[in-house]
Amino acid sequence: VGEVSRTRQSERLPGFVLSREVELTDDLRSIAHADVIVSAIPVQYMRSVWDRLGPVVRAHGAPLSVVSVAKGIENDTLLRPTQVIADALSRSQASSPAPRLAVLSGPTIAPELARCLPAAMIAASADQALAQQVQAMFSNSWLRVYTNPDVLGVELAGAVKNVIAIAAGICDGLQAGNNAKSALLARGLAEIVRLGQAMGARADTFFGIAGVGDLATTCFSPEGRNRSCGEALGRGRTLDEFLAGTNSVVEGVATTRSVRELAHRHAVEMPIVEAVHAVLFEDQDPIDAIASLMSRVQKAERVG
Amino acid sequence: VGEVSRTRQSERLPGFVLSREVELTDDLRSIAHADVIVSAIPVQYMRSVWDRLGPVVRAHGAPLSVVSVAKGIENDTLLRPTQVIADALSRSQASSPAPRLAVLSGPTIAPELARCLPAAMIAASADQALAQQVQAMFSNSWLRVYTNPDVLGVELAGAVKNVIAIAAGICDGLQAGNNAKSALLARGLAEIVRLGQAMGARADTFFGIAGVGDLATTCFSPEGRNRSCGEALGRGRTLDEFLAGTNSVVEGVATTRSVRELAHRHAVEMPIVEAVHAVLFEDQDPIDAIASLMSRVQKAERVG
Repeated sequence: VGEVSRTRQSERLPGFVLSREVELTDDLRSIAHADVIVSAIPVQYMRSVWDRLGPVVRAHGAPLSVVSVAKGIENDTLLRPTQVIADALSRSQASSPAPRLAVLSGPTIAPELARCLPAAMIAASADQALAQQVQAMFSNSWLRVYTNPDVLGVELAGAVKNVIAIAAGICDGLQAGNNAKSALLARGLAEIVRLGQAMGARADTFFGIAGVGDLATTCFSPEGRNRSCGEALGRGRTLDEFLAGTNSVVEGVATTRSVRELAHRHAVEMPIVEAVHAVLFEDQDPIDAIASLMSRVQKAERVG
Repeated sequence: VGEVSRTRQSERLPGFVLSREVELTDDLRSIAHADVIVSAIPVQYMRSVWDRLGPVVRAHGAPLSVVSVAKGIENDTLLRPTQVIADALSRSQASSPAPRLAVLSGPTIAPELARCLPAAMIAASADQALAQQVQAMFSNSWLRVYTNPDVLGVELAGAVKNVIAIAAGICDGLQAGNNAKSALLARGLAEIVRLGQAMGARADTFFGIAGVGDLATTCFSPEGRNRSCGEALGRGRTLDEFLAGTNSVVEGVATTRSVRELAHRHAVEMPIVEAVHAVLFEDQDPIDAIASLMSRVQKAERVG
């Protein structure tokens, strides 16, 4: 906080200067009376932060409105970001009203947003009024926000696409070409749809901006962290080497474990997720992993 | 034929040498006894060639097996490639058995295929035996072929994705970024699905390798001709200037007219197709076309 507060810049977004209207603080009490809280915490660290926020927001009389922008699934609990928030708050403030929860997601590579390039996002909430409030808050001349009631689908799409992006990056690292990567994108989308349908999400969500749109930008934008991680693996670096060289959180790595467990729990076949898990955590050679994906015996195409 | 026959190379695929096992000829009679004919003719020129092939294949006793790899919709008739072949043959050889027709499609940028990089394709036919025959003919260690009975869906996906790719190229030419292009890809897929469903195709086809897979590679591969055409338009060149500078057929240009007519005929909203039509044929400024796409009043996301 100190450094960014002083320079109004971050080395992760070269050239971007934070508006003076934005106040930075690490005082948790500052959120006690916020109208809307945007939760932008990497998924595996959310719970520890929201555990500490619980006692602070307990003072809040009205239900809390929280917009989550995290993309992943918590390890072990297999909870989605909004579920982690609800769970942490329910433990610490049993008597307060349940929070109103929304998700903001979509193809939004940060350096492009920082340059005000056009983009589209999804504001998802079971609470339609909150979805519309988020839509109004974030819409502007270059950012278009659509609403969607399917929180489960939007959060699953955001989580699993990071795993598929690691596989796409492996393709890049192996210099397998865009034909292979695009086939992988299509098969990856099919895996997302199968898991989502088994869990009760709407298939339409996965074919929209927060689904295939986010998947496409994550698989093809050079800046993507998950894709870059996969690319390094494809070039022969180890996961530990890659993670030691970055100060960013690569959400897809931990999320691969969670998504694989969800797939097993719901008896859904997710061969790309399995292959990424094998490369990340079982020392499989990326070349063998991709080769085994390509040679899977499955002759008639199947999506749902 | 003469030049390629002598050099075994084409300037369109630098570095690729045609196998000596492939015989080149422009003698139409050579196809009279072919087991399977692969029709790789740009869509707007197919009819004139198949009109001339009709009398030749009339001699053929068994039904002709034809695999089409063209991606587009014929102007005025609004017929798909396999329909053009069937139509041309039915006019010239009324007494012969109807041809067996298949489509081979998918994300297959040619320079990558020429280097034997891994890829996946769809062999589509209402005749399952033919689909499997095509699958067996084209499958090898680096090319994986899936079957799909939905010829209509595969041909529509292949045609419309070229129009969406022109829009994606316009985004690139305007340097709008990958967030915008990915949102466009998702909205473009929704347009393809809406048209396909109105015409009776299976939605699953559009979410598979020949649908979203081909759309992704066409929108993101720098080599794509339709994307490149759009990029030139986005940079301020005129369509005539671009076409004068290429010796390749840009299928998406003529197909834009056909797809727009199909959309009107089936009362399907296709705003991206309308925008591309306006830029190509109505002198609309690409910046205005993209801006008007972004500002469309549509608040809740809708796919089907």
